[in-house]
Amino acid sequence: MRLATVRTPEGTTHAARLDGEEYTVLPGHADLGSLLADEEWRRIAKDAEGPRHHRSGVEERTVVPRPSKVLCAGLNYTSHIREMGRELPAHPTLFAKFADTLTGPYDAVEAVAEDPEMDWEGELALVVGRTAHRVSEEEAGAHIAGYTVANDISMRGWQYRTTEWLQGKIWARSTPVGPVLVTPDEFDADTAVLRTTLNGEVVQEHAVADLLFSPAHLLAYVSTMVPLHPGDLILTGTPGGVGRARTPQRYLGPGDLVAVSVDGIGTVSTPIV
Amino acid sequence: MRLATVRTPEGTTHAARLDGEEYTVLPGHADLGSLLADEEWRRIAKDAEGPRHHRSGVEERTVVPRPSKVLCAGLNYTSHIREMGRELPAHPTLFAKFADTLTGPYDAVEAVAEDPEMDWEGELALVVGRTAHRVSEEEAGAHIAGYTVANDISMRGWQYRTTEWLQGKIWARSTPVGPVLVTPDEFDADTAVLRTTLNGEVVQEHAVADLLFSPAHLLAYVSTMVPLHPGDLILTGTPGGVGRARTPQRYLGPGDLVAVSVDGIGTVSTPIV
Repeated sequence: MRLATVRTPEGTTHAARLDGEEYTVLPGHADLGSLLADEEWRRIAKDAEGPRHHRSGVEERTVVPRPSKVLCAGLNYTSHIREMGRELPAHPTLFAKFADTLTGPYDAVEAVAEDPEMDWEGELALVVGRTAHRVSEEEAGAHIAGYTVANDISMRGWQYRTTEWLQGKIWARSTPVGPVLVTPDEFDADTAVLRTTLNGEVVQEHAVADLLFSPAHLLAYVSTMVPLHPGDLILTGTPGGVGRARTPQRYLGPGDLVAVSVDGIGTVSTPIV
Repeated sequence: MRLATVRTPEGTTHAARLDGEEYTVLPGHADLGSLLADEEWRRIAKDAEGPRHHRSGVEERTVVPRPSKVLCAGLNYTSHIREMGRELPAHPTLFAKFADTLTGPYDAVEAVAEDPEMDWEGELALVVGRTAHRVSEEEAGAHIAGYTVANDISMRGWQYRTTEWLQGKIWARSTPVGPVLVTPDEFDADTAVLRTTLNGEVVQEHAVADLLFSPAHLLAYVSTMVPLHPGDLILTGTPGGVGRARTPQRYLGPGDLVAVSVDGIGTVSTPIV
């Protein structure tokens, strides 16, 4: 099943199910976060009948606009760990984002005057489907609603001002997420490839199966510390090929188009303005 | 003016104004976050008449139960920076917490089996009173609703598992905040002393005027990156005297009572269980 938060031509926003190229609006849920908060969301989403719109006629929004938590793993592909000059870690490296940091899958992102070192990080993200506190890795799969695509656009200058990366990661509307959530039964993590392109040129291309800490491991690990709620997001980390690790370094600026796709989910495509 | 979120003997939770030792419930606001979201909150809080309760008859809860953001400064007192063996920084060091990490000013905090290195960090915290995006340090004061007290209880083992401190800082219900918010006109930051006691022994005692980055500076700095909303919290950092920096190191365990007070605001007092 493929689910999204869409704005219809009437200008209202709804949770919706995508079948082929057609969205069915799910009545009573203003966004996917609202739907996921209902324990019966799978059945509701599967059975719902509502107004239909061709995909080309709606605007896909960020999949969950107001999650209570957004966690992100750093250094989670061996290729990226090595290009940043680090050893393979024993534990996930985690930082946070805020709901205000998220934006839609096709929204423009503004270059910021304060930091010219704007970089891309294509990522697979998971969406929590059921409250999880102190669940094991074996139990974690049942708490994953599905997967989506994110670009953890990072302001490297501010990220490395201090030892804590947060301030490179929380700029307003800088993290596109979408375009849809794909439930685990329809996503093949063993074969899916993540690809990032900059103005059409492939800059990241890596199998998501190479994640050092799997989505289930990350969910269980975070849930040891703090409850995860339906709609919460975990960005699983980026593979090798970010702009900062290139020689010469390469950053995003106005006029660039950066796109991240994961096989079986779709593409977030971001003009920098 | 002194404001709080209180649970009355009837078992309902309300925003309330404290005059002397008497709370006046502010009708129509289930907590202080709801009150602060009303642009007229100062007038509403000042003029409101409602049911009254002696302070001893209500339960003071964490001041804002569901802020959209909780940011924390690390390394913001020269004494603490030096005891951790670091240079004075040019920029604030920031990390995040989640609403689920907060707890009430007198609630017990559970020792966690996964990390025996539970430490205290007494802190002055500010509460945002008005949406702030890209405000200057000069403008920032007008966006501060007031000040409160926090104990950023930290799991040092997990904090230092990786370079990112987040995972020592986000454990469920581990950060007591309260008991009241004191508006800036009634708080004297030039003379207030922050004190932390462990089982009655003073372990931190420092003038909050010694903050390297002031509350207004921190609010303006964060607002450069992302909008701050009414009720959002910024914890301003802890002075010297944390358990990890002692010889020998000293950590919290069941049976301990750790208390943090700031002159003119009050005390958060936390039994470890």
